[in-house]
Amino acid sequence: MKLNCDLGESFGQWQMGLDQHVMPHIDMANIACGFHAGDADVIAATLKLAKQHNVTIGAHPSYPDKQGFGRRSMAMDASELYHCLHYQIAALAGMANVHGLSLSYVKPHGALYNDMMKNKDILHTVMQSVADYPLPLELMLLATQSATQHQKQARALGLTVIFEAFADRQYTDEGNLVPRSQSGSVLNKTALLAQVTQLAKDGTVTTQSGNILTLNADSLCVHGDNHAAINLIQEIKALCQ
Amino acid sequence: MKLNCDLGESFGQWQMGLDQHVMPHIDMANIACGFHAGDADVIAATLKLAKQHNVTIGAHPSYPDKQGFGRRSMAMDASELYHCLHYQIAALAGMANVHGLSLSYVKPHGALYNDMMKNKDILHTVMQSVADYPLPLELMLLATQSATQHQKQARALGLTVIFEAFADRQYTDEGNLVPRSQSGSVLNKTALLAQVTQLAKDGTVTTQSGNILTLNADSLCVHGDNHAAINLIQEIKALCQ
Amino acid sequence: MKLNCDLGESFGQWQMGLDQHVMPHIDMANIACGFHAGDADVIAATLKLAKQHNVTIGAHPSYPDKQGFGRRSMAMDASELYHCLHYQIAALAGMANVHGLSLSYVKPHGALYNDMMKNKDILHTVMQSVADYPLPLELMLLATQSATQHQKQARALGLTVIFEAFADRQYTDEGNLVPRSQSGSVLNKTALLAQVTQLAKDGTVTTQSGNILTLNADSLCVHGDNHAAINLIQEIKALCQ
Amino acid sequence: MKLNCDLGESFGQWQMGLDQHVMPHIDMANIACGFHAGDADVIAATLKLAKQHNVTIGAHPSYPDKQGFGRRSMAMDASELYHCLHYQIAALAGMANVHGLSLSYVKPHGALYNDMMKNKDILHTVMQSVADYPLPLELMLLATQSATQHQKQARALGLTVIFEAFADRQYTDEGNLVPRSQSGSVLNKTALLAQVTQLAKDGTVTTQSGNILTLNADSLCVHGDNHAAINLIQEIKALCQ
Repeated sequence: MKLNCDLGESFGQWQMGLDQHVMPHIDMANIACGFHAGDADVIAATLKLAKQHNVTIGAHPSYPDKQGFGRRSMAMDASELYHCLHYQIAALAGMANVHGLSLSYVKPHGALYNDMMKNKDILHTVMQSVADYPLPLELMLLATQSATQHQKQARALGLTVIFEAFADRQYTDEGNLVPRSQSGSVLNKTALLAQVTQLAKDGTVTTQSGNILTLNADSLCVHGDNHAAINLIQEIKALCQ
Repeated sequence: MKLNCDLGESFGQWQMGLDQHVMPHIDMANIACGFHAGDADVIAATLKLAKQHNVTIGAHPSYPDKQGFGRRSMAMDASELYHCLHYQIAALAGMANVHGLSLSYVKPHGALYNDMMKNKDILHTVMQSVADYPLPLELMLLATQSATQHQKQARALGLTVIFEAFADRQYTDEGNLVPRSQSGSVLNKTALLAQVTQLAKDGTVTTQSGNILTLNADSLCVHGDNHAAINLIQEIKALCQ
Repeated sequence: MKLNCDLGESFGQWQMGLDQHVMPHIDMANIACGFHAGDADVIAATLKLAKQHNVTIGAHPSYPDKQGFGRRSMAMDASELYHCLHYQIAALAGMANVHGLSLSYVKPHGALYNDMMKNKDILHTVMQSVADYPLPLELMLLATQSATQHQKQARALGLTVIFEAFADRQYTDEGNLVPRSQSGSVLNKTALLAQVTQLAKDGTVTTQSGNILTLNADSLCVHGDNHAAINLIQEIKALCQ
Repeated sequence: MKLNCDLGESFGQWQMGLDQHVMPHIDMANIACGFHAGDADVIAATLKLAKQHNVTIGAHPSYPDKQGFGRRSMAMDASELYHCLHYQIAALAGMANVHGLSLSYVKPHGALYNDMMKNKDILHTVMQSVADYPLPLELMLLATQSATQHQKQARALGLTVIFEAFADRQYTDEGNLVPRSQSGSVLNKTALLAQVTQLAKDGTVTTQSGNILTLNADSLCVHGDNHAAINLIQEIKALCQ
C-alpha cells in the first residue's frame, strides 16, 4: 500500500503541516488547490518538493471555503461542483506542468470527500468531472463495502479508482469511518499500528463491533501535522513494505 | 487587425457585458480567470461560446482583487506575481482543454496591464512567467514606441508578442494611452471611427499633440458593455477588413 | 403592512438592483453586509439613500459565499454562525452610525433564511445571536403557522420578531413558501395583486391547495430588480395603505 | 510607555501568534479585523482574552488582502479606503460591545501603516475616516520627527493621536524605521533592550548614524510570535515601569 498525505495546506503567511519533513516518506501527495488551503506560491513550493522526492502528485480540490478549511458542506449545484472541480484540477495540473510534473489523480478534500461517500449524486458529479477532464486522472475514494459498485460506476465513465484506507481511524461494519464525534473514532498509536499491520498482511480491518472486514486498499492515508506524526509515518511505512 | 475583447467578466449572480452578443463579432476573447472577475461557471460558459463562434481564446489574468476588479495596483513580489499568473493561466488553459480548445495567448488585465507597460521589472516578470508556461502562448502588449524593444526582450525568452491598439483612446506621443483622468482621453464615435480607419489604412494614429505615430498593431481592443458598443464593434470590424 | 426589500446587493463594479428607484417606495431596507453581496462602498451608498428617503434599515446577513450569493446552505457550527452574524450586524450597525442612522432589525438572507425556517437549531442560533447583540434589534421571520411558537421562543430571549409575508409566492398549508422548483410557486401579476389585496384586507392567503390561512404579517417582501418590478411595488404599496 | 502588540492574526484553521501567552503582559491589543487576518471566531476569542486580562483594545484594519497579509500596498481610492476602514472599525467595535468592551483606538496594519506614514493623502484619509467614526477613537501613528505636525493635523479634525515607537527596529535620522531590507534594521536582543532603556529613561533613540533623536512615544510596539518573544516582552515591560 502506498502512503498518501494531504500537503500544501499553508496559505499566505500561515503555515500548516511540516511538508518538507513529510515529503521524503510518502508516495502520493494530495495537494490543496487554493479553495480550502494553498495559494499559487504554496502550490509551486509543494510541487518543487514533490519533484525533489519523486512523489506522485494528486489534486486535492475542495468546496470554496478557506475560513472553514473545506470542512463545511456546501449545497452546490451539480453544475457548479463540476466546474469548480475542473478549475481546481486545471490550476494544479498546469502548475505541475510548469515544474515538469504530471498530475496523476484527484482526491476530494474534507466535507466534499465525506459528502461524495454518502451521497450518490455528489459521487456521480465528482466522477463525471474527473472522467471528463482531458488527462488520464484516477480518482481516490474510501475503500468501503461499496467498493465493487464504485469501481463499476467509475469504469462506465472510463475512470480508474484508487481505494484508500485510514491508518488512524476506527471503522464501521459498512467500511465507513466512525465519525470523529464518537469516542474511540481516532485510534491510539498501538491500535493504529495494529490496524496497519492487519491491512498490510491480510487486507482487512477489525471494525468497531469486532467484525473482520476486507478492504482492498491501494493506498493508506497518513498525516504529517507535527514531528510525532512524521515519526509515525516512518513506522507505518516500514509495516507496509 | 484582429478584434480582441474582454469577456467572461460576470461573477456568480452578477452579470457584466453582453458576451453572447459580442462573441460573434470578435476574433480574440480575453477571458477573465477568476481573480478580478469570472468564476468556474462563467469560464465554462464563456469557453462554450468561444468554441461556438470559433474565436481564439486568451487568458486575462489579474491582480487578485475582485472588489477592485483588478483596477488597483498591488505591490506583489516578482515571485508572487509569477506564480499568480501561472495559476490563472493554468486554470483557464485546463478548462479550455475540457471544451476541446487550446489557449493561445495571455493578456494581463487592468492595473497589471498598466503596471507592466510602465514598469520594466513587472514586464520582465510577466514575460518570464508566460515564457515559462509549457504551452506556446503569446503575450499581448500595448503597441507603443517601445514595441521593437519589447519584441527583442520577448524573443530572448522565446516568447512571441501580439501588439494591440485601442480603438477608443487618445494617444500620447510615446504611444501610450492618455490617462482616463484627462479630458479627451476617450474618443467620441466619430473620432473613434476615424482612428480605426487610419490604423487600418496606414497603421498610424494621430496623437494628442497632432503627431502621426506608427503603431504596428496586430489587434484592436474593443468593448462590448452594451448594445450601442456592439453595434460599434460591427462598424469597426467592417473598417478592419 | 410595511414593505421590505433587499438592497445594497451590488459588489465592486457589478451592479444589481435599481436601489435608487426602489428606495423611495419602500419602508424597510434589508441591506447586504458584504458576505453574499455588498462591500463597504456599496453599504455607504445604500445607507445614504436610506437616510435620504427616511427608510428603516435592517442588516441582511448571510452565509459567507459571494460566488453563490448566499443561496447555498453551508454547514456552519452554531458558534461559527453566531459570530458570523455578529460580525455582519456590527459592520452594518457601525456604518449606519457614521451616517447618523440606527440599525433597527436583522433579516437573514437566502439559504440562511430558509435553513432557519426549517431547522430549529439554526433558528435558535440566529435568535440567540441577534438577542445577544447589544442593540434593540428585531428579527424578521417568515409568518408561518409556527408564528406563535416563534414569538414565544423569541420573547424568552428578550427578542421582538417581525413577521413577513411574500407578495409573489404561492403558500403551502403550513404557511411555507412553495419551493421555486415547483411550477406555480411564483405568482403572476394578477395572482400577486390578489394575494396582496387579501393579505391587506383579511390578513390571509389562499394556499396551493385552496385553504385560507391566517398570516399575521407585519411586513411584505417585495423585489426591485427592474423597472417593471418597481412599478409593481407602487401598485402593491397602494393596496397596503 | 504602554506596550502594544498585534493580536488576533489567526484565520480559520491557521494559527498565528501565541495570543494567550502574550495578552497577560501587554497593555494594548491591536486586533485584526478580518481583512488581512482574523475572522469572526478569532475576533470573538481575542476579545474574550482581552477582557480577561483587562487590556485596552484597538482595531487593526488593513488593505483587503489575506494572501498578502496586508503587506502589499494597494492603490485604493480615498473613498474606498475611507469606507473600508469604517467597515473594519465597525465590525470590531460592535463585536467588542457584545463582550461588554469598548474600542479605544485604531492602528492601521502593515502596508497601510507604512503608506500612511509616507503619503500625506493616505494619512489624511485615514485621519478623516477615524475622526468621522462616531466613537471617541484615537489613532496610533509612528512617533517621527513629524509628530508635532501630525498632532496638529489630527487636532484640526478633533482626533487624538497615540505615538508609538518600536523596540526592535533601527531608526533613521528622520525618526523612520530603517527598512527591513537593510542589514541592521532589526536589532539583536542586547541592542533592543538598550533602545528600550533609552526610550524609557530619556525618551530618545540613537539613530543609524549615531544621532540622538527625541521620540515622545506613548506606546511601544512588541511582538509575540514565539516563546522567546514573550520572554522578551516581559523584560521590556520591566524596563518600561
